[in-house]
Amino acid sequence: MPRVSEQYRADRRAEILGAAARLFAANGFHATSMADIIGEAGLSAGAVYRYFPSKEDLVAAVAETALSAADEVFAELLADNAAPSPAHAVSVLIEAITARLMNEPETGVDFTRIGVQVWAEALRSPALATRADAVYLRLRGHCAEVARRRQQAGLLPDDADPDHVGAAMLGLVQGFVLQHLLINGTTPAAYIAGLNALFPTPTS
Amino acid sequence: MPRVSEQYRADRRAEILGAAARLFAANGFHATSMADIIGEAGLSAGAVYRYFPSKEDLVAAVAETALSAADEVFAELLADNAAPSPAHAVSVLIEAITARLMNEPETGVDFTRIGVQVWAEALRSPALATRADAVYLRLRGHCAEVARRRQQAGLLPDDADPDHVGAAMLGLVQGFVLQHLLINGTTPAAYIAGLNALFPTPTS
Repeated sequence: MPRVSEQYRADRRAEILGAAARLFAANGFHATSMADIIGEAGLSAGAVYRYFPSKEDLVAAVAETALSAADEVFAELLADNAAPSPAHAVSVLIEAITARLMNEPETGVDFTRIGVQVWAEALRSPALATRADAVYLRLRGHCAEVARRRQQAGLLPDDADPDHVGAAMLGLVQGFVLQHLLINGTTPAAYIAGLNALFPTPTS
Repeated sequence: MPRVSEQYRADRRAEILGAAARLFAANGFHATSMADIIGEAGLSAGAVYRYFPSKEDLVAAVAETALSAADEVFAELLADNAAPSPAHAVSVLIEAITARLMNEPETGVDFTRIGVQVWAEALRSPALATRADAVYLRLRGHCAEVARRRQQAGLLPDDADPDHVGAAMLGLVQGFVLQHLLINGTTPAAYIAGLNALFPTPTS
């Protein structure tokens, strides 16, 4: 048997993921079959199934790309015990989504379109719902950590629950994604200006 | 020809709308056909098409129910030249969605599930996208009016654009709907507590 290099494997995996992302973004998760993905990738069915046994595995891999980007954003925001304001954290996350996910560099696909498709599909698929729940809890956890740091710095009320504040922060991000896709002319700059007007930054 | 009373018409229309809402919420907009709706309503195809020539008309009627509820909420909030805080307006809207749309009294259907289905479908259907755009602009306009009143009362920065503030307010509401449906254990009370901690209410 020929030895298959790590690089070869990584390239095949990226090709399949790109094909799946293009189809999910264009046609939705439900209307895309494994056969469609195999056709779009131009590989054998065996090759595709070896890397991704199911559509759920593919969508999980797409979500992982988005989550890794978010992990990096929060690692930077929270480095050196920083206590950024929630409004700043939400703004930075919205800018990162715009720059890195709306035209994802590896695939050229708008990953936020896939996100909205998955939201809808998760309401009908328990398997997808379980994965979506985990994804959003991880994101909300990052937001809650921002709230916790802010509280420790005395800049959020003592009796606020950081998880609840994190939920509202994540909500602002989700609302931006939706409005950017669905309401003509919603720009990141306009939305961020709006949220900054809502949150006067305490400086004491 | 027999004369058909107004009441008869209204009842048939409500029956068809209820059948469509149940199917949209359970199976999504894309996977529901006019034939499915005709079957669920238990009426003739001719009867159904007379009231609603297309699925888009049905989903528009469902959206109208939700929007009418929002119109009432804002009419109350803004009565007598009141200038409620954006956080209060968002909280009241979230409470109204929970009470009136998550278990809509006429149909027993969770209309927010339909909303999420429509978000996804609007990305693929230009006809639906145009209608969704109009729906969200109307909601965002109500939010912007709250911001405008607040600004006139000197409680929002003079240089803030009320439309941008309205976008962030609507984003908070959309984020609640999503998290309530997709993240286990997200309650209206927890989310509202989080957003209140984020927005210290200016009282000057």
